[in-house]
Amino acid sequence: MAVASGFEPLEELLQGFVEATPGYSAQLCVIQGGHTIVDIAVGDISPEQLSGVFSCSKGAAASVIALLLQRGQLRLNAPVAEYWPEFAAAGKENVTVHELLSHRAGLMGIDGGAPMAEYLDSSVVAQKLANMPRMWAGNSLFAYHSLTMGVFMEELVRRVTGERLQEIYEREVRAVHELDFYLGLPAELENRFVPVRHPLNAMPEVFVDPFGLQGVGANSVTGFLDNEGQQTFDLFSVPNVRAIRESGFSAVGGVANARGLASLYEAFPNMIQPETLAEMTTLATSGLDVSNGEPGAFATVFTKPRLGNDFGSWRAFGHNGLNGSVGYADPSYQLAVGYLPLHAEGVGTGSRSDQISKLLRQLILRNAST
Amino acid sequence: MAVASGFEPLEELLQGFVEATPGYSAQLCVIQGGHTIVDIAVGDISPEQLSGVFSCSKGAAASVIALLLQRGQLRLNAPVAEYWPEFAAAGKENVTVHELLSHRAGLMGIDGGAPMAEYLDSSVVAQKLANMPRMWAGNSLFAYHSLTMGVFMEELVRRVTGERLQEIYEREVRAVHELDFYLGLPAELENRFVPVRHPLNAMPEVFVDPFGLQGVGANSVTGFLDNEGQQTFDLFSVPNVRAIRESGFSAVGGVANARGLASLYEAFPNMIQPETLAEMTTLATSGLDVSNGEPGAFATVFTKPRLGNDFGSWRAFGHNGLNGSVGYADPSYQLAVGYLPLHAEGVGTGSRSDQISKLLRQLILRNAST
Amino acid sequence: MAVASGFEPLEELLQGFVEATPGYSAQLCVIQGGHTIVDIAVGDISPEQLSGVFSCSKGAAASVIALLLQRGQLRLNAPVAEYWPEFAAAGKENVTVHELLSHRAGLMGIDGGAPMAEYLDSSVVAQKLANMPRMWAGNSLFAYHSLTMGVFMEELVRRVTGERLQEIYEREVRAVHELDFYLGLPAELENRFVPVRHPLNAMPEVFVDPFGLQGVGANSVTGFLDNEGQQTFDLFSVPNVRAIRESGFSAVGGVANARGLASLYEAFPNMIQPETLAEMTTLATSGLDVSNGEPGAFATVFTKPRLGNDFGSWRAFGHNGLNGSVGYADPSYQLAVGYLPLHAEGVGTGSRSDQISKLLRQLILRNAST
Repeated sequence: MAVASGFEPLEELLQGFVEATPGYSAQLCVIQGGHTIVDIAVGDISPEQLSGVFSCSKGAAASVIALLLQRGQLRLNAPVAEYWPEFAAAGKENVTVHELLSHRAGLMGIDGGAPMAEYLDSSVVAQKLANMPRMWAGNSLFAYHSLTMGVFMEELVRRVTGERLQEIYEREVRAVHELDFYLGLPAELENRFVPVRHPLNAMPEVFVDPFGLQGVGANSVTGFLDNEGQQTFDLFSVPNVRAIRESGFSAVGGVANARGLASLYEAFPNMIQPETLAEMTTLATSGLDVSNGEPGAFATVFTKPRLGNDFGSWRAFGHNGLNGSVGYADPSYQLAVGYLPLHAEGVGTGSRSDQISKLLRQLILRNAST
Repeated sequence: MAVASGFEPLEELLQGFVEATPGYSAQLCVIQGGHTIVDIAVGDISPEQLSGVFSCSKGAAASVIALLLQRGQLRLNAPVAEYWPEFAAAGKENVTVHELLSHRAGLMGIDGGAPMAEYLDSSVVAQKLANMPRMWAGNSLFAYHSLTMGVFMEELVRRVTGERLQEIYEREVRAVHELDFYLGLPAELENRFVPVRHPLNAMPEVFVDPFGLQGVGANSVTGFLDNEGQQTFDLFSVPNVRAIRESGFSAVGGVANARGLASLYEAFPNMIQPETLAEMTTLATSGLDVSNGEPGAFATVFTKPRLGNDFGSWRAFGHNGLNGSVGYADPSYQLAVGYLPLHAEGVGTGSRSDQISKLLRQLILRNAST
Repeated sequence: MAVASGFEPLEELLQGFVEATPGYSAQLCVIQGGHTIVDIAVGDISPEQLSGVFSCSKGAAASVIALLLQRGQLRLNAPVAEYWPEFAAAGKENVTVHELLSHRAGLMGIDGGAPMAEYLDSSVVAQKLANMPRMWAGNSLFAYHSLTMGVFMEELVRRVTGERLQEIYEREVRAVHELDFYLGLPAELENRFVPVRHPLNAMPEVFVDPFGLQGVGANSVTGFLDNEGQQTFDLFSVPNVRAIRESGFSAVGGVANARGLASLYEAFPNMIQPETLAEMTTLATSGLDVSNGEPGAFATVFTKPRLGNDFGSWRAFGHNGLNGSVGYADPSYQLAVGYLPLHAEGVGTGSRSDQISKLLRQLILRNAST
């Protein structure tokens, strides 16, 4: 049974998307109270296939951060420099782990860009970031650190444990919970990978200054490498490059399906104690993102519901990806959700994932009251 | 004389509202420099009748907070726990009275709701809030605490004085200044009460997650009681319930007319010293409300003028209610204003109260320059 | 040669403005890597003529602040009261120079207005501001201090050096770098001055409360003096008054042409060490301006790029004026830019200066990649 009784309207919603937009293809998986209540795919993708999930990767990487917090190996209120001494350079001695991991450090990226390889083995970028002054003054400003958040997490894990974040994730999270969510896709699973496709509807072109906070954050000057090792600026194709999938770069290199996304979030309460999970998922920043002027809301690593991306209750935590993929948990509804479209699409109010999230909650509330 | 010379356009404005929207009914009272310059009612309500004023109640309750500040019984910069020791639980030992009363504490409500009776005798809810951790990290975030602000005020007053806030308000504020503004409507005045009516024009339905910050803040899971003791989620009918009017719950339980609203604000400079009034009415938070992503601006308890709710000068302070009722003082214009519509209506830019406030100031400026 | 090879589209853009809006007249000067690559004027103004630049004046005055920082005569993290003891009054003893000069002090102006003469010899206004309490609580709120920012800078310079800011600017900045950018236009250059003209397209009238934060900030109650010494509220005519041009009031009294604007910013790296320049041009505030609810972003004195006024890279710094004039440096592109329209016009997204800035950067990026 792919859809539990009472949740049929979710499948109808996805079928409606197919009818409205020929070519639309996506996976949706919903787990509630430990039961999988939706596990479907529509269009040109099966529930088992895998694709790139971009920044949803950060949610998987955050599980390792949560494990270190739980074990007392890392403290949110400690200065970053306690674990990573070089980070104290250029006036950053008091920046805390909490500030760093809630997008407040002001280390958007390497001005002028860094070669892709330096991000995939993030220690080189980490050293460059450690030497940098902050790109703004004070601790109340924030901006989404789309790439360097991965570097921060990986370097902290390396300093604290001596291991790569991806190794710990594979051993202690992915394998234990048998998640179809990989930070580093094994070669033998490549046959299940379907490349991310460009949006079905062209998005308007806007000039983003490659030297602005947002451009630096996206490494826009240097761009990325394609499968032939050539420079590319096509962000949508990032996970389509084998080297990036192989590395499992924790900012954007993850590969999963909707089941994997949902199962990751279903696993959180089973591996992390409530106190640690509450500490890590408490809203830490909210307001206008300094880099693009748009609303943002973050806990430690995770995104939080807000106007414009209202995916759940105040306890909900998750992450979305550039292609419209979304994974999140919502403890208030005992929910774990994964959504993965084949063609990149938008997120936020009115988007498909937004319609799904709101309908899902309304169905739960309606089912509970009858 | 209901309208002083030079202010006739205000009456014309209200008559225009009646013509544009049959059924529109409202009271307006304006006191300037100690003189009542407007005291009118249009439609199906007289100037003497009383109705629910929802969160305008907070402005009345704030008068008691101001009295305690003035007497040195309460200090804004003191930790809440100095007066209310249980509040120190769950990491809240450093939250100050100023943060608590300017909507920064992150204690939106009881997750999953609380029975109405616990709000009406707010000490039960107060104890639950005291045990809670904050719903966000840090002191720079804020969200409108629509119900719990009443609990905060009532509990602080109880701890400091041993009396109920409503008793002090009745004895030292309402009775002294003979205000038609009740926190706890006496049974003998029930014949003057007219129930709040639903909006004349249907408002669009939006899904507000009952477990989101806003939903928790509105007690959306539990809802309220109607006059038959049945659960209801109709917010507009809250003051139409006798038990709520009788309690005078300081968040939303007040009953007044426009004269009462204006007279409360006219009384402030007569009962509170300028230093205390300045301290209490200084802008303390401004920006985007964490719970709904919309602009907000607060002093201690009071709302302040801002883009989207620009009701006066930088010295102005007041509060509006869910039904579009408004009460405020504007020291820069020596103004005290009360507005009470019979049918609930919107507030903010373009609303009727916004048009009234802007026209009123333009008339004063025009009259002064001629 | 008025336009270097590869930058012809900028001249075409300005010619397009002339065709679209008869009467449009403006100067544009662009210096890149030390070379003037655009130096043109269209319509009814020549490149050599001078006009009012309103708040672009703050960028010139900021050069004097930068010199004092570089010499160690002023420290951003020091309390203002260390240099200006009277400023400690009314609870302001801990306000730092950094807070004061990044629009966070909450001293918008003199409530009820101050005579123009007191602004032109700013020490009288300075004394009044020193006595005032802040108009908001806390250090995280900000609002653009359109007039008093000039007073702050002038008073700090006077206290630290004993000289007028304008004297130091003339001797150590303007004369040394031979800038056509005057804080105090000499009588013998009056023949080159062309008065600011009103907008070619009428702007919509909105009510701005003269006693609101924004109104107080603009001295709206008192207004300004015209050439006959009469009170005027026409902001666009401010630099058309000889007394104001003569004073060179550092908030709005500057006179320049596009060459002067660009040359000022070209001079910054030649007179200020990188460390001091970085300290002074680092983003310090960002979010919603408390006075008007609109986005703002400031470094020390300078404006910074942001959504809605995206004039450059994250390193860019500059200032714009009420008439649409703009001057800025963008170190990421080795750019210094000045733009001065004869008729006042808007700034921000979609404005002429915004189109110019975006096209300019796109041309540089395109030229570099070919």
